[in-house]
Amino acid sequence: MALLANRFSSALRTTGRSYPALSKLPAAGQRSFSASSRWQLHTKEMNDEILASLKVNQSRLMEDIHYTCQWGMGKKWGARSTETGMSRLALSDADKEARDWFMRTTEALGCNTTVDAMGNIFAVRPGIRSDKPPTFVGSHLDTQPTGGRYDGILGVTAGVELLKVLADNWVETEYPVGVVNWTNEEGARFPLSMVSSGVWAGSIPLETAHNLREIHPGTATMASELARIGYLGKTPASYESMPMGAHFELHIEQGPLLEMANKKVGIVQGVQAYKWFTITVKGRDTHTGTTDLKSRADALLTASKMILHSHRLATTNSALASTGILNLKPGSTNTVPGEVTFSLDIRAPKDSTVQRMAAQIKSDFPKIAAGQDVMNCNENCITGLPCEVSITEDFDSPATTFHPDCIAAVHQAAHSALGSNSHNLIMDMVSGAGHDSVYTSKRCPTSMIFVPCREGISHNPAEFCKDEDCALGAQVLLQSVLRFDRMRDERRVTWKQEPYTL
Amino acid sequence: MALLANRFSSALRTTGRSYPALSKLPAAGQRSFSASSRWQLHTKEMNDEILASLKVNQSRLMEDIHYTCQWGMGKKWGARSTETGMSRLALSDADKEARDWFMRTTEALGCNTTVDAMGNIFAVRPGIRSDKPPTFVGSHLDTQPTGGRYDGILGVTAGVELLKVLADNWVETEYPVGVVNWTNEEGARFPLSMVSSGVWAGSIPLETAHNLREIHPGTATMASELARIGYLGKTPASYESMPMGAHFELHIEQGPLLEMANKKVGIVQGVQAYKWFTITVKGRDTHTGTTDLKSRADALLTASKMILHSHRLATTNSALASTGILNLKPGSTNTVPGEVTFSLDIRAPKDSTVQRMAAQIKSDFPKIAAGQDVMNCNENCITGLPCEVSITEDFDSPATTFHPDCIAAVHQAAHSALGSNSHNLIMDMVSGAGHDSVYTSKRCPTSMIFVPCREGISHNPAEFCKDEDCALGAQVLLQSVLRFDRMRDERRVTWKQEPYTL
Repeated sequence: MALLANRFSSALRTTGRSYPALSKLPAAGQRSFSASSRWQLHTKEMNDEILASLKVNQSRLMEDIHYTCQWGMGKKWGARSTETGMSRLALSDADKEARDWFMRTTEALGCNTTVDAMGNIFAVRPGIRSDKPPTFVGSHLDTQPTGGRYDGILGVTAGVELLKVLADNWVETEYPVGVVNWTNEEGARFPLSMVSSGVWAGSIPLETAHNLREIHPGTATMASELARIGYLGKTPASYESMPMGAHFELHIEQGPLLEMANKKVGIVQGVQAYKWFTITVKGRDTHTGTTDLKSRADALLTASKMILHSHRLATTNSALASTGILNLKPGSTNTVPGEVTFSLDIRAPKDSTVQRMAAQIKSDFPKIAAGQDVMNCNENCITGLPCEVSITEDFDSPATTFHPDCIAAVHQAAHSALGSNSHNLIMDMVSGAGHDSVYTSKRCPTSMIFVPCREGISHNPAEFCKDEDCALGAQVLLQSVLRFDRMRDERRVTWKQEPYTL
Repeated sequence: MALLANRFSSALRTTGRSYPALSKLPAAGQRSFSASSRWQLHTKEMNDEILASLKVNQSRLMEDIHYTCQWGMGKKWGARSTETGMSRLALSDADKEARDWFMRTTEALGCNTTVDAMGNIFAVRPGIRSDKPPTFVGSHLDTQPTGGRYDGILGVTAGVELLKVLADNWVETEYPVGVVNWTNEEGARFPLSMVSSGVWAGSIPLETAHNLREIHPGTATMASELARIGYLGKTPASYESMPMGAHFELHIEQGPLLEMANKKVGIVQGVQAYKWFTITVKGRDTHTGTTDLKSRADALLTASKMILHSHRLATTNSALASTGILNLKPGSTNTVPGEVTFSLDIRAPKDSTVQRMAAQIKSDFPKIAAGQDVMNCNENCITGLPCEVSITEDFDSPATTFHPDCIAAVHQAAHSALGSNSHNLIMDMVSGAGHDSVYTSKRCPTSMIFVPCREGISHNPAEFCKDEDCALGAQVLLQSVLRFDRMRDERRVTWKQEPYTL
């Protein structure tokens, strides 16, 4: 504050308004104020230079990241205490600890917290126009079973750091600013990704979400676990009960493109389209030693051809195809498997590409099961007895295009944060992964900020983002929110809470 | 007995010898004998006609099969009460019940029972030369987790039926006749097939076998389960403690060859060679949406290529290759698997073929893991990052050749049982599956009898062998044992208890 007061005295003003929420702020050692009169720095009175001087505290951010990673610590990959992965499944005891920290910390920073019926936690710091929907930043604190310390966690802790910077500098925003922790984004424990932002957006029925059963051991549901850890809130999980003025999400890229191109910030234009399928191949259990190749209906050999074929289709379509789960029955070395079930995840930037691939799969897999030669999959093979295949589409996420105003705010923020060489360090890109921002974008202006992670590795204990890249991302996030706040005021735009077309 | 006394009076004789074991026989309603003097029919005094007139009782055999299948009943596949599969894992409570039945029944038929340190149960009916090793028939009462009612069970119950026929007809054999139930033949619960005949033969150390850990849930060992169900016998599990004069095994073919060729009896010349491997492919867990195909080390795509390649090698080598188990990590729809482990079972009639295939696999799999194109596996694929592969040979079973004298006895028995058209109904064949006879053949003359099973299906609840085929097999088994008993006497051959070369 002392620094700001010196450098930007023109921006300082006395205000007689009372901010009950801000009065909860812990007394910063070097400052004291009377109860009735405070120095407040208003976003709409800041020029670009003042805005840019508001900076996140890198070491404090990293401390928050690693401090919260004590809950659900995973596999060690390096010598340092912070070099472990994470295994913080949604609504586990570890997740509860992280949530409690988030509630405690944001409340201490002057936020009002709300927990909705999906356990989503909204921490809102008041602004001048507190009747308007807050500008939110958000991500998730849950992880994959063998995840890392950055996926989701960076976005939430950067939001907390943003609140700390605003508090430290007594910044008063025109609109409220919120940080949201979305529940079960990963879909790793309860098998539906981004389910809670999906309910908020009205895209997934609450009942469907509440009834989701955990994958292992399969007894608890989302509703029972929300109740168990005390996060089954009374507020309806809905964009109507908790409207958002915007949603910004900082995230590691989870891919290698930024690193390979030597870029620092990805300005995310949207999210690629994807579909998830469950494929079941039924053949016949038979003895491996006594059944000649012609007399087999080998469900695993057939599934192997399908997995290879899906990769070939992805190659020819410039798309992605992946199988992450495969189970077979009965599971004995000397029994040819009679049943194989596997997941198939196909993605491409354009909806039309995903639709074309889905059609090819629906056409080709039954042919492969029947023993036909598709793209030479039967070369040097003996055709056995036919298998049956069933294909179920579990999830369809059309391509998402983010909001131009949010993208513009992130652009400005990135240039501000990166300085003179910024043009060489910024990359416009499309997200390969789904994020909660996919659902928020249906109900409010949304965009995302990517920072590079080592070798593009994610969903892996060794997932790693450099401290300076975490801080840079948080800085861009902070600047985006402040610039968007100013933009909202300048334009007096009220974005509709209905799905909009760009 | 009345029938026999009329038709073959020349074969009947009075004996003053006392057979304590036979005195345990339940009094057959229509017969009574003084304690000191009995009619006994001696095998060496029977001509071919008399021998052939000794017949198994088909309905009694089927009753034993289905009665014992009450313990460990599996999946229903048909409308009748007997149309279910079996799930009787070795040393389970259900297996204990079946074992108790076997002990009870064979003892009631005048046998002395011995349980060895592997829980193998030897039921021996005395003969005239009770100082000599018995002629055994044997198989196993354990099943696959999704097995059927005939694999193993037919061989043991046919042995019991054989004892009943001998008892009913007061047949006295020259050499003792035994029935053996081998423990954990399937290797489905404790992952080593034919482990207990292997210990008996001196091929597998007792300690290795005792320490085998069950696959699910993985806490019990063979030793702990043997003790728990009361079948940890004091007799050493060894061919030295329990020598065998011969070992005959009746089994369903578990393949389609007999049925396809319209044959009724397979005279098994030996068992094909096989090797079991565990293959581990290590790649890298990465996000399915954000990792382009070039940047992936996809362990499952690589494993799929290997499984397909092993099938192609089997095709070109006229051999078999099968994968029955596959596990992957971490197992999430949107994570490319970083680790896949799968089993590989390769088989061929000749050792040299199996060795050639093993060498090709050891040479080709690392190339496939490294991203090289082997037999066009990379056609239309994008080469990703290299994976690592490790190949462990778990089990090696060289080709087995059965004993010509045993094979000759089975030939005679089959011709006798099948009558005038026998030449059209018999097939010399090699077993595709391993059996306990592989190990017994290392220590005593051995051969096997196959009967057809429907569509060759085995290791499947719907495994099915017609009643008349079960009975025909049991009849050939009975005749083989009796003919071999006569052969032993005629030749006064004492087969060595050491491994022999044919």
